[in-house]
Amino acid sequence: MEESAEISTETTTKDITELQGVKRDDNIVFVGKKGAMGYVLAVVTQFNNNAGQVTVKARGKLISRAVDVVEIVRNRFMPDSTIEDISISTEELTSEDGSLNKVSAIEITLKK
Amino acid sequence: MEESAEISTETTTKDITELQGVKRDDNIVFVGKKGAMGYVLAVVTQFNNNAGQVTVKARGKLISRAVDVVEIVRNRFMPDSTIEDISISTEELTSEDGSLNKVSAIEITLKK
Repeated sequence: MEESAEISTETTTKDITELQGVKRDDNIVFVGKKGAMGYVLAVVTQFNNNAGQVTVKARGKLISRAVDVVEIVRNRFMPDSTIEDISISTEELTSEDGSLNKVSAIEITLKK
Repeated sequence: MEESAEISTETTTKDITELQGVKRDDNIVFVGKKGAMGYVLAVVTQFNNNAGQVTVKARGKLISRAVDVVEIVRNRFMPDSTIEDISISTEELTSEDGSLNKVSAIEITLKK
């Protein structure tokens, strides 16, 4: 995202449960409820598979875990990597009972 | 901070309890354990007192609340404000028993 100040107000229909596993599509790691080290491993694995950059995403209370993941990658495993971009936004999630909830989100892009 | 990718490894001796209130020194709002709206009010108050920019800081699990605070300020109270900078870092905190803990931190600077 070029403009980090831009707010996404698009309604996302992705199920919340999708956040609970480690996703590896398009060099994106969604941080869910597992321990931080699993997501750290996912990021490092993507870089080892020749990804030039990896984006770590999270929503709600998992935002702090996403920051932990990026900090652990940078401090412990890939000291030469740099933070390319950090953006925050508000997403509207449709929960299972159909109600609409606003939730904060973060995207942190790491570059090798 | 100019370089958002820079990691602060300075040992901070600030007591953790300092984070639990709303601080308003130097246009900084530390997000603690109170509800998000208290910190939203603190940010809006600083802007109304002619601050040109306000930095919202938080550590650990409170990082997600800091993002909530900024998003609420931007979406609900100050739609013309922009995010000037977001940086993440790792801080070393000395706890009461003298042990050293690493904790992630975030700083989000909002501009009127």
